[in-house]
Amino acid sequence: MQITSEALERAIEELAKLPGTGRKSAQRIAIHLLKQTDERVYTLADALVKLKKSVMRCSVCGTITDTDPCTICSNPKRNNGTICVVEEFQDVYIIEKTNEFRGRYHVLGGIISPLENIGPDDIRVKELLQRITDSEEGVQEVILALNPDAEGEATSYYINKLLLNYDVTVTRIAYGIPMGTELEYIDEATLSRAFASRTSF
Amino acid sequence: MQITSEALERAIEELAKLPGTGRKSAQRIAIHLLKQTDERVYTLADALVKLKKSVMRCSVCGTITDTDPCTICSNPKRNNGTICVVEEFQDVYIIEKTNEFRGRYHVLGGIISPLENIGPDDIRVKELLQRITDSEEGVQEVILALNPDAEGEATSYYINKLLLNYDVTVTRIAYGIPMGTELEYIDEATLSRAFASRTSF
Repeated sequence: MQITSEALERAIEELAKLPGTGRKSAQRIAIHLLKQTDERVYTLADALVKLKKSVMRCSVCGTITDTDPCTICSNPKRNNGTICVVEEFQDVYIIEKTNEFRGRYHVLGGIISPLENIGPDDIRVKELLQRITDSEEGVQEVILALNPDAEGEATSYYINKLLLNYDVTVTRIAYGIPMGTELEYIDEATLSRAFASRTSF
Repeated sequence: MQITSEALERAIEELAKLPGTGRKSAQRIAIHLLKQTDERVYTLADALVKLKKSVMRCSVCGTITDTDPCTICSNPKRNNGTICVVEEFQDVYIIEKTNEFRGRYHVLGGIISPLENIGPDDIRVKELLQRITDSEEGVQEVILALNPDAEGEATSYYINKLLLNYDVTVTRIAYGIPMGTELEYIDEATLSRAFASRTSF
């Protein structure tokens, strides 16, 4: 096989490294880009460069941001005394989409996992305690919103135990039957949890 | 919803414009890139910019190339007197992968389609005739390798008719039963074609 364009070949190779993109899709994307205006492609390339250049971690909550502190931490309206603890910045995105939570976040940047050798000191727990100690934010409630798996449970218990020494209420988001499903299709662990966590009607 | 990183938002938007990439995959790709080294992302961005900057059409065969003429047209070993006519440069790629054809190509850059108002003058037919007239390449055979649909058939017939006035053999690639399938799953049009184009055993 004779390659007529090394530039196309290189673009395909680089695109094929993206998650969920095999060589065929990479080829389709490269050919699509070839047909676009120069400006369109430069805009995409520029957006990717800027993604790496301007994105950093918020020094307060640990989410990704272009400015430090992030727009949520620097928004006085979001300072309502509640902090929602999540594992990663993607979770901030997901929760923000619901428009339900109006407080601030704390991104742990990981989860306690003995199997992967990640201990309490490897995630941003100290920073959480610091925020609670600093009277500045006036934290009254910490909402734990970690994934309902073994690591998430362990981390939640660990943080809850630590926070017993602080003058804050610790809550966790409800785990139970997801909306719009039928009981028939719910696994036993979820159903057990839904019974244990039943609320008064 | 409060967006903490405009740069991430912009990258997701741009990535979501790629073919086969919805907002969810764009988000996954952007987050993946955030976790990569700066160099990895800059390499990707650079590959996309170079794709637009260095890729052009070969003035001889019309395929895409970084140098004019392309590596196939400038390769004396590929000058074996045969020209394979294809619709688009992707077809050159596909045929090159087989390592079967050792001649040169001619990319029409389109297909005759009255419905889309594309006539013979809109595709590179004149350039093909010119290559045959120029004794330089010594063209003896023109292989038509267009798609077996209405437009491909019409264009093949048109080119074949034109070439009757030239001292070249015109052939077409075989259309028939693809390898590795069972007759049961072959459509009637293909099967009819396979019968009509039967060869001696």
